Amino acid sequence: MDRNIYIDNMNLEEALKLWENKLSEAGCFSPMESEAISIDESLGRITAEPVFACLSSPFYNAAAMDGIGVRFQDTIGASEATPVRLSLHSQFEWLNTGNVLPQNLNAVIMVEDVQPIDDNTVEIIAPVTPWKHVRTIGEDIVTTELILPDGHRIRPIDQGAMLATGLTEIEVRKTPTAIVIPTGSELVQPGEPLKPGNIIEFNSRVLAGYLTEWGLLAERSPIIADRPDALRNAINDAVARYDIIIVNAGASAGSRDHTAGVIDELGETVLHGVNIRPGKPVILGIVNGKPVIGLPGYTISAVLTLNLFVRTLADTLLGAQSPPPRRLEATLARPLSSKLGVEEFIRVKLGQVGDIMMATPAGRGAGAVMSLVQADGFLQVAANSEGLGAGEKVKIELLRSEHEIQNTLVFIGSHDNILDVLANLLHRQRPICRLSSAHVGSMGGILAVKRGEAHLAGTHLLDEVTREYNISFIQKLVPAIPLQLINLTYREQGLLVPKGNPHNIMGFEDLVRKDIRFINRQRGAGTRLLTDMHLNRLGIEPSQVNGYEREEYTHMNIASAIASSNADTGLAIRAAAVALDLDFIPVAEERYDLILPKAFLRDSRVVALLQTIRESAEFRRIVEKLGGYDLRDCGRIMYEQ
Amino acid sequence: MDRNIYIDNMNLEEALKLWENKLSEAGCFSPMESEAISIDESLGRITAEPVFACLSSPFYNAAAMDGIGVRFQDTIGASEATPVRLSLHSQFEWLNTGNVLPQNLNAVIMVEDVQPIDDNTVEIIAPVTPWKHVRTIGEDIVTTELILPDGHRIRPIDQGAMLATGLTEIEVRKTPTAIVIPTGSELVQPGEPLKPGNIIEFNSRVLAGYLTEWGLLAERSPIIADRPDALRNAINDAVARYDIIIVNAGASAGSRDHTAGVIDELGETVLHGVNIRPGKPVILGIVNGKPVIGLPGYTISAVLTLNLFVRTLADTLLGAQSPPPRRLEATLARPLSSKLGVEEFIRVKLGQVGDIMMATPAGRGAGAVMSLVQADGFLQVAANSEGLGAGEKVKIELLRSEHEIQNTLVFIGSHDNILDVLANLLHRQRPICRLSSAHVGSMGGILAVKRGEAHLAGTHLLDEVTREYNISFIQKLVPAIPLQLINLTYREQGLLVPKGNPHNIMGFEDLVRKDIRFINRQRGAGTRLLTDMHLNRLGIEPSQVNGYEREEYTHMNIASAIASSNADTGLAIRAAAVALDLDFIPVAEERYDLILPKAFLRDSRVVALLQTIRESAEFRRIVEKLGGYDLRDCGRIMYEQ
Repeated sequence: MDRNIYIDNMNLEEALKLWENKLSEAGCFSPMESEAISIDESLGRITAEPVFACLSSPFYNAAAMDGIGVRFQDTIGASEATPVRLSLHSQFEWLNTGNVLPQNLNAVIMVEDVQPIDDNTVEIIAPVTPWKHVRTIGEDIVTTELILPDGHRIRPIDQGAMLATGLTEIEVRKTPTAIVIPTGSELVQPGEPLKPGNIIEFNSRVLAGYLTEWGLLAERSPIIADRPDALRNAINDAVARYDIIIVNAGASAGSRDHTAGVIDELGETVLHGVNIRPGKPVILGIVNGKPVIGLPGYTISAVLTLNLFVRTLADTLLGAQSPPPRRLEATLARPLSSKLGVEEFIRVKLGQVGDIMMATPAGRGAGAVMSLVQADGFLQVAANSEGLGAGEKVKIELLRSEHEIQNTLVFIGSHDNILDVLANLLHRQRPICRLSSAHVGSMGGILAVKRGEAHLAGTHLLDEVTREYNISFIQKLVPAIPLQLINLTYREQGLLVPKGNPHNIMGFEDLVRKDIRFINRQRGAGTRLLTDMHLNRLGIEPSQVNGYEREEYTHMNIASAIASSNADTGLAIRAAAVALDLDFIPVAEERYDLILPKAFLRDSRVVALLQTIRESAEFRRIVEKLGGYDLRDCGRIMYEQ
Repeated sequence: MDRNIYIDNMNLEEALKLWENKLSEAGCFSPMESEAISIDESLGRITAEPVFACLSSPFYNAAAMDGIGVRFQDTIGASEATPVRLSLHSQFEWLNTGNVLPQNLNAVIMVEDVQPIDDNTVEIIAPVTPWKHVRTIGEDIVTTELILPDGHRIRPIDQGAMLATGLTEIEVRKTPTAIVIPTGSELVQPGEPLKPGNIIEFNSRVLAGYLTEWGLLAERSPIIADRPDALRNAINDAVARYDIIIVNAGASAGSRDHTAGVIDELGETVLHGVNIRPGKPVILGIVNGKPVIGLPGYTISAVLTLNLFVRTLADTLLGAQSPPPRRLEATLARPLSSKLGVEEFIRVKLGQVGDIMMATPAGRGAGAVMSLVQADGFLQVAANSEGLGAGEKVKIELLRSEHEIQNTLVFIGSHDNILDVLANLLHRQRPICRLSSAHVGSMGGILAVKRGEAHLAGTHLLDEVTREYNISFIQKLVPAIPLQLINLTYREQGLLVPKGNPHNIMGFEDLVRKDIRFINRQRGAGTRLLTDMHLNRLGIEPSQVNGYEREEYTHMNIASAIASSNADTGLAIRAAAVALDLDFIPVAEERYDLILPKAFLRDSRVVALLQTIRESAEFRRIVEKLGGYDLRDCGRIMYEQ
């Protein structure tokens, strides 16, 4: 096999410095040249030179109020006892706000203070000072004064100020252009027929989207096949026409990764490989004086390295600095291990639970697009750190507004499909309110409540002694926390099997068969305990079950493994079988409850959620369609302490 | 005269409630209907229904690393002592990241851990667990799972997630449309010839700009003359085609203000007049089920009322709540009087000076567009307040990012045209850095330093006894503050007169002439003291000078008054005469210094400014062109304490 190795393993800070130096040397790290445009078209553009007033504003003496224009000398001595009468045209003129104050007049009296006597006469009962209620020439701005500095992003009010002083055109920075070149013979455009091994080409859309949001004109090229000649032509073409060239991917060390080789051949590879995770295989190059960046193929890696290595470049070409990323201090909810010697960027979810902003590490797979959709921020772990402890204060770089995060209801615990329904109804009812759910099993939920990480936990743990759900576990694990246990649903658990049950599985007793590949839930999941209970009753040891050690985190992932023939059976709720059109062998009805600490009973997000499960007809309608649910006690308080 | 009166004087909270109720009743206060669009076009749009995965992602078992696909069973027992050899095709396959894992294989070993023996054989020295380095079907998301709730503003990564799960089209809210109708016979389009009484029509651009930034499709109509029939036609036309109709202006009580009357005739005037300042004469109406809002003519009033009465409506039609305005707590720098019974919105400038975020009230005129360009935020003063004291904590609604405000260098003191030059050079050198300057005279500057409101003050006060500039004033007024006094420039002060000196003014002695209209600077200005000194020497009383009591705040405003024949002469610097092409009768050379408290000596913004005045050749070049400046001591420390 013909495999590349990374040229470099430079640390991030050095890599950024080297990149900026090389860009400067190549002459592509300074603002774009300028162009003249109409002020009407200038919203959001960046001034390329200071803007000075062309005309004073106002450019004539203007009435600042509706009323009459007068000479202040004619009003001296006016009082209630000695009112003064003024004659139209010789001593006063009616004026509306904005009207020219005639040359011979020098003050305005408000209409409310004027008593009309007849068509040509008014009476006033107070004198006026010179230039009262007059906007004198240049009051707002005088010809030649500075309106905007250069490098300023133009706002609507700036357009107004420039137009007000007689300007119609200004010099702004040309908008930098960028192209994203998707490479890979396995890529297919969205909507085209798919076969295994194909990857839907969406990265170029994501990357072009961010570049657009940053203010660039971003385009996407057609998909380029994994052939050096095709890539060479595409890059040559692009450097002639665009200011920033992004190649995605072909950046790693696989046999089809030609990007580094082609950049080397056409220009200079500044760097291939930075000591970060995700994003290590990034390529930074310069071809014909243009930056050519090879981003890794995994979406998360590509987005992260775009931010690290292209954002500042984009700002520099635009000629205006964008605000730095918003940051927030949070408390780490659980320990986090990190690879020593590598700078790691960890996706986290955030939740304001009581007084504490909790950060919970989310998925770490670079391929997990949904984990970035759901993430609230990134936690950067320094290369010299082996990890962080639970409770440590950490700085999070935000991916959402703080306001949105503060309105997020944090659910941790057992997974159930109803949570999706609730998330959506809650968001619709109060658009700013989100439900963030982490699926760590029933036990994980109770412990999250104990640690103060969650507003709500979901649990369905059967005590084999008391034959009661959840209560004894709460009494044992979180006796000191005042809380309510509120029923969400009863639901059917059963063994999922492919349609038609080809392996003829009838119950847990079949799991000892050598031809059956079982798939299990993770430790701490109520469903895992239910499996263990049934195996135990039947006297079956875990070691007798092929696949007992294989863990998934949700009902849907169990269903997915079976639907895709990665396993033959597994225990999950009926709704998962219905969703993926599998057969279902009922095992038990179980109770799924929500644990709600009383501290959050009056929280408006919690109130909204309880109202939904207790009162919404739509909620009931949707849940009943999912299959396998019984809402007879939904919303009922089953226990409190 | 035919004059309207305001129908109402409702308080803001009631007005907002009434408006939302009336909009709801009229059926125009709910999200737009939905439309299907390509996901490629969906950036920034709002989902109109929840989005569910159409396909699992990945939709096949995929290698998560470059390496070999194997059966985990074949690797059991491998160790350094007992390596295991595997044969190509029968026991392993070479795989790149993303390749399909063949059906018969169930794990991937990274290329780094594989030792090739020959073309068909590899050796491994460790076993692998099942499904290691495999992205199993649905690992990221399983068919039918929720990707996005409805009412969600689509980000680039959301586009990626939707495309990844096989979707190509989604339902989003239609984009609401708005039209801004400028009315007024005095309005002319930018660039058209101007005569006194004309107003350049820029408000519609400003208002449409904000609506665009909020996510609406905003258009502007041609200028409508002040005739009820023309306005009637324009509104009728607009309600048939747009979702929000903005009329600007015709909203106040002037004789040409027809907006309220026409809305009344075509539909319902919900409200005319709200108890706020600025913005009182706003009109809220509904015509044919469409909101028609008459905004006041003054730009500041129009922008403020647009925010108060249209922003929430726009969000509601869009179907997504925008983040609330950013707020910040600041300390009021000086007392602020406010009219009892009126809710006031005061423009403020903000500056982080040491540990304190200082808020300084800026211009209050509703016509002062530049004051809004320069403002950092709004301070809302409740109707039941008569004002606020210096040092009070106030909440400011921000008009700029906090980051930008924190990077603002706050200058308070005497006005000089060089400050514009400095502001621009500083901004160019460090784009995030702004110079905010408030012109309150030399005394005001020293007092601002005393109160900790400013990083820098500018002063040119001559002590008649010591014949020295500035130092004795500092010793007397701020003896306890360690500071440096740094020279900025020497400059010529003189009497400005129209070109050719038509009144034949030779010096201050001419100010007693009855035919001469003088214009003065404000109390506390160094230039005012210079005037007083000269009058005093000549034995002239202020009361003998026609116009002595008329005050302007800057040299340029003095020049402007003379250039526009509002006054015949006034004392100002030569640069102001040069800028407006006036004649100049020299009176004195004076020294203009900067006061810099030592606490800020190492502040990077201050360092950048000092570097500019001490080292920049461009600075010297530009200043010398302004006229009347001598930079022989520029940057030199004249005194320190």
